[in-house]
Amino acid sequence: MSGEKVKVAIVGSTGYGGVELIRFLLGHPNVEIVSVISASSAGVPITDGFPHLSEIVTQNLDGVNPAEIAEKADVVFTATPSGVSTRLVPQLLEVGLKVIDLSGDFRIKDGATYEAWYKHEAPESKLLEQAVYGLSEIYGDDVHGKDLISNPGCYSTATLLGLIPALNAGWIDPSSIIIDAKSGVSGAGRGTSLTSHYAEINENFKAYKVNKHQHIPEIEQVLSNINGEPVTVTFTTHLVPMTRGIMSTMYAGMKEAHTDEEFVKLYRQYYEGRSFVRVRGAGKWPATKEVFCSNYCDIGFAVDERTGRVTIISVIDNVVKGAAGQAIQNLNLMMGWDETTGLKLSPVYP
Amino acid sequence: MSGEKVKVAIVGSTGYGGVELIRFLLGHPNVEIVSVISASSAGVPITDGFPHLSEIVTQNLDGVNPAEIAEKADVVFTATPSGVSTRLVPQLLEVGLKVIDLSGDFRIKDGATYEAWYKHEAPESKLLEQAVYGLSEIYGDDVHGKDLISNPGCYSTATLLGLIPALNAGWIDPSSIIIDAKSGVSGAGRGTSLTSHYAEINENFKAYKVNKHQHIPEIEQVLSNINGEPVTVTFTTHLVPMTRGIMSTMYAGMKEAHTDEEFVKLYRQYYEGRSFVRVRGAGKWPATKEVFCSNYCDIGFAVDERTGRVTIISVIDNVVKGAAGQAIQNLNLMMGWDETTGLKLSPVYP
Amino acid sequence: MSGEKVKVAIVGSTGYGGVELIRFLLGHPNVEIVSVISASSAGVPITDGFPHLSEIVTQNLDGVNPAEIAEKADVVFTATPSGVSTRLVPQLLEVGLKVIDLSGDFRIKDGATYEAWYKHEAPESKLLEQAVYGLSEIYGDDVHGKDLISNPGCYSTATLLGLIPALNAGWIDPSSIIIDAKSGVSGAGRGTSLTSHYAEINENFKAYKVNKHQHIPEIEQVLSNINGEPVTVTFTTHLVPMTRGIMSTMYAGMKEAHTDEEFVKLYRQYYEGRSFVRVRGAGKWPATKEVFCSNYCDIGFAVDERTGRVTIISVIDNVVKGAAGQAIQNLNLMMGWDETTGLKLSPVYP
Amino acid sequence: MSGEKVKVAIVGSTGYGGVELIRFLLGHPNVEIVSVISASSAGVPITDGFPHLSEIVTQNLDGVNPAEIAEKADVVFTATPSGVSTRLVPQLLEVGLKVIDLSGDFRIKDGATYEAWYKHEAPESKLLEQAVYGLSEIYGDDVHGKDLISNPGCYSTATLLGLIPALNAGWIDPSSIIIDAKSGVSGAGRGTSLTSHYAEINENFKAYKVNKHQHIPEIEQVLSNINGEPVTVTFTTHLVPMTRGIMSTMYAGMKEAHTDEEFVKLYRQYYEGRSFVRVRGAGKWPATKEVFCSNYCDIGFAVDERTGRVTIISVIDNVVKGAAGQAIQNLNLMMGWDETTGLKLSPVYP
Repeated sequence: MSGEKVKVAIVGSTGYGGVELIRFLLGHPNVEIVSVISASSAGVPITDGFPHLSEIVTQNLDGVNPAEIAEKADVVFTATPSGVSTRLVPQLLEVGLKVIDLSGDFRIKDGATYEAWYKHEAPESKLLEQAVYGLSEIYGDDVHGKDLISNPGCYSTATLLGLIPALNAGWIDPSSIIIDAKSGVSGAGRGTSLTSHYAEINENFKAYKVNKHQHIPEIEQVLSNINGEPVTVTFTTHLVPMTRGIMSTMYAGMKEAHTDEEFVKLYRQYYEGRSFVRVRGAGKWPATKEVFCSNYCDIGFAVDERTGRVTIISVIDNVVKGAAGQAIQNLNLMMGWDETTGLKLSPVYP
Repeated sequence: MSGEKVKVAIVGSTGYGGVELIRFLLGHPNVEIVSVISASSAGVPITDGFPHLSEIVTQNLDGVNPAEIAEKADVVFTATPSGVSTRLVPQLLEVGLKVIDLSGDFRIKDGATYEAWYKHEAPESKLLEQAVYGLSEIYGDDVHGKDLISNPGCYSTATLLGLIPALNAGWIDPSSIIIDAKSGVSGAGRGTSLTSHYAEINENFKAYKVNKHQHIPEIEQVLSNINGEPVTVTFTTHLVPMTRGIMSTMYAGMKEAHTDEEFVKLYRQYYEGRSFVRVRGAGKWPATKEVFCSNYCDIGFAVDERTGRVTIISVIDNVVKGAAGQAIQNLNLMMGWDETTGLKLSPVYP
Repeated sequence: MSGEKVKVAIVGSTGYGGVELIRFLLGHPNVEIVSVISASSAGVPITDGFPHLSEIVTQNLDGVNPAEIAEKADVVFTATPSGVSTRLVPQLLEVGLKVIDLSGDFRIKDGATYEAWYKHEAPESKLLEQAVYGLSEIYGDDVHGKDLISNPGCYSTATLLGLIPALNAGWIDPSSIIIDAKSGVSGAGRGTSLTSHYAEINENFKAYKVNKHQHIPEIEQVLSNINGEPVTVTFTTHLVPMTRGIMSTMYAGMKEAHTDEEFVKLYRQYYEGRSFVRVRGAGKWPATKEVFCSNYCDIGFAVDERTGRVTIISVIDNVVKGAAGQAIQNLNLMMGWDETTGLKLSPVYP
Repeated sequence: MSGEKVKVAIVGSTGYGGVELIRFLLGHPNVEIVSVISASSAGVPITDGFPHLSEIVTQNLDGVNPAEIAEKADVVFTATPSGVSTRLVPQLLEVGLKVIDLSGDFRIKDGATYEAWYKHEAPESKLLEQAVYGLSEIYGDDVHGKDLISNPGCYSTATLLGLIPALNAGWIDPSSIIIDAKSGVSGAGRGTSLTSHYAEINENFKAYKVNKHQHIPEIEQVLSNINGEPVTVTFTTHLVPMTRGIMSTMYAGMKEAHTDEEFVKLYRQYYEGRSFVRVRGAGKWPATKEVFCSNYCDIGFAVDERTGRVTIISVIDNVVKGAAGQAIQNLNLMMGWDETTGLKLSPVYP
């Protein structure tokens, strides 16, 4: 790169994932934002919809034009709704852009499975093959130098980082895995509906899409890869009256007895050298606020001798490690930079 | 009435004001709800949109048909959007129904003023004349036996109950009144928009419609009546990240020095016998949670000798005293019942 | 009773359970509150700490004196901390009072188990024997005419009402039960600590006491009774950034395949005639706000054919059905009144 | 400085101001944190109380020992309670340290006034004279090279930045100023009390210290300086159910008519070159979330022709521009660095 900055464009700059990409990329030393793009608001200042960027981002929003993007940018983040990326990403690749896609469209390798859960037509299978699943701590080596990265789902990130070391070590029974997940409201995006209305969410806790969430096949695909045989999970999602944060509380039967301390050691070894996973000491469990606004994933354990099960608790900020932050981590890995570049912000507390 | 219950219908049963009317009327000893009505959702169970009413209200929603309503009901609450009541209320009166209107359409006596602030066509002036402004503690005597009651606005209720005794006594300078008002989000209704999106409201405090809120002419109309001469106020509205509650913090120059204790005494005398106004002792100011889910309006004072001003703090639950509760209080007054009938619920705490 | 009201006293009137008892008992037609009692604040008006009760409860707080209570009251609610009831309840029984205890002290039949989980000395075993566990919908018949009722824990209530019909029917494998529970902050009481500090709780979701919560033996005791053999459960508790509400999300393997519809039918039959349990239709799951401020327990199901498990979701308001409301329900059952007397308030929404 | 970093110590590292200093200083290119200090928790890892700093700050907390601090550090931030700084700061200065004090102890030039509002003994008058009041945009030039900076109060910062340009221009009547201020809960610090209990704050809005807040003399001292004659203000503080953020809504009579546009122009000229004040265009008012977690102060206007008053709205993040951020801005000014060094983080949204 020799001193020159990588030029990036962001499609979907008027969503929460888009503005969070902007927040982090503004502080990234190797990157220049050359275009902020919105299909719906092209031509107006981004500050019309996001006054918090006043005097920080003075560009107008551009429209979605692959040829024009290719003239300006090297890499594109597509923070677009599911279904939109399916159509847009091939066009971006064709004009020579590298793409980091934050939609779910390129996560599921099997098109039929994708269509069963997403209810959209799948991208063509060649692209599904080509896309690297960018769960940075697990598949980061595969990301280097690639053109199309599929950024993992928010629930999937918290869940997979919490389960993989134990599953990989053969410590837990794959058929026993139950995942009770909880998310803040920003996960549903900036679209307006009764389910995001303040008076309906505040002072309320609710379950949704029980056994039906589209992150289920994504989680099962990865766990099956790790396990070498198919894994089927029970997975529930809940909405928490807060803006940011995901917790996955996960239950599994242990094949043999292990202590909290042994789990801590196993996980710390597994994630050695990966700055963004922090394994808590025995008897300590992370809260979502402890990763608020940061790219960390914190993990804790509670072995229950009475039942022979382990409870694993994993938290992330859904907008950062669950979306924009991990996408930038993937940019870093793609470019061969230190994976923490531009992401070393401490969590915000309180 | 001789043992028979008054039959009421509620138009706008799928709004927050509508379901709050239902909550209180279900416990009202003299009333039977004969029809819950929604223009948009006729024919479906009300529990589709409001599962909290499961097994409590088993009726389907009816459509808006004045003749049909008149066959079933004696009194109608119209919890309809501004502009809708203008057209609907005359039809309801014509078929012989009594109407308590919760929209703002019949509050402003001068049609031109209404149109300047509401940007709709005003109701015909005969009806504006006929409508009794139902600020229960002030104009309750006028409500008895009338056919059309215009229920006051939420901000207006908190503000007027807080200012009238001092203005009436000549203790404050009418030209100096500044009202800094704050409301929970339910005040904006159940409609969806970016301004009611959880992630935009949570952990946020904002001003809106500064100097432009449509309750300004309503407040000035009443204060001018009390004062005998026109009163013009400065009025700001803010949105608080909570569901229910309004606080009006009001500032006025005192014509002569008075103590907190004197204000307490003045207000307690003024509101003697009115159960729903509670005047706090000197040095105590009410918080919105202290009237949460109840029909109370609590008021406190802080005289500042340094500046010669008094600060008056008035709180209500905007959905109760600011809407449904006061509407039922007006029903009670209209019928000649004790004004607290069906409304004697303690605030919910915490 | 012949027209006379039952006289009740409330020990622990300055806690959240205590003031919620007051809120409901004020509207109870058969009851008169003769004494509000606080060990720490005797002699001062209850409104000093709870201004929301201004002009509603004008009594001063009394001290804890069993003989004096017995002169005034027939029944005492003890909303006291764990450990305090152990010492106080025997004194109250001795002077001839009937007691409904909201602490956990009389829930566990086995003193050693109590001491292992509560880290206090247990009450004498005679009293543990005598105490009736007041899970109204399950053991309501045993409550009638008794002198000492032990009111169930909040988590236990939501969990047990959600599991018992399926366990009783033999539809679920008792060894497979996993309970992921979530509560609002009021469950921890009004005591001040860093864990109840607003800035630590707001915009945060956290787990606590994983596998260690003192409601575990209570839940297991009842499930074992129903099952006829010992049941051991995995149980996790989480704190939700809201004031009121509990959700138990429960997982169990099904012994044979059943549909959502079959679960709905089973539960509706089981709870037939019990007004406060509402079983949602297939594919509908209750949210905590749908029971907010009410005595309802709402239950929904999601059978997962892929894994052979059922997910059961049960919600209550922890301060009402999880504490004060169920205590009054037990008073009603004790006295032979309709169990809904004084409790027929609709949930508050929004 | 020639390549070497300035060594800083933070006294009061276990408060919210202290950890926010750490968050920003970790990213400050010219600074090294050499000691995190706590009187109450010396010897334990800071992560015991703040797990969000796990693997980020691995130092143990040091005790408060001026001589030891002087061996390690060049500059000390004292984020200590009022009263503590009065005694500690002289000791720190004596051993040759530069001090930026975040308590209120050195803000009021007149000791007697300090004692009247703070109810503590004032620091000696020589130090009160010496301390530079670090309202960066107003008195930044005085900060350069000084040894003792008194960091402004949170309410004072929002209020003064919002009023000074208009007052300085002679556009508003100094005797007419009314300030209605609102703050998130973090402003009260991490200490536990009923007034910071989640269940008391959530879904609640309340006023406190009406006309009695200790920032009143601080605001009046500065406004009087600007005005050239004494200014007395009416000032009310309210608590908002949110963690961070302050809004000051300010009212003043205009001496002559001015438009919104004229105010915008006046303020933009006044703050030209000061990156952290953003003046909104006519008809736009800032919300607290638009400066969340950042060092910005955003200001908007609403002239009311009807009353001849202007409403000025000013927002900050109380923990950043109202405390830690402005303290670092003062460090930058003290050292002669660009005032934005280490502070150029975009607001967090949503």
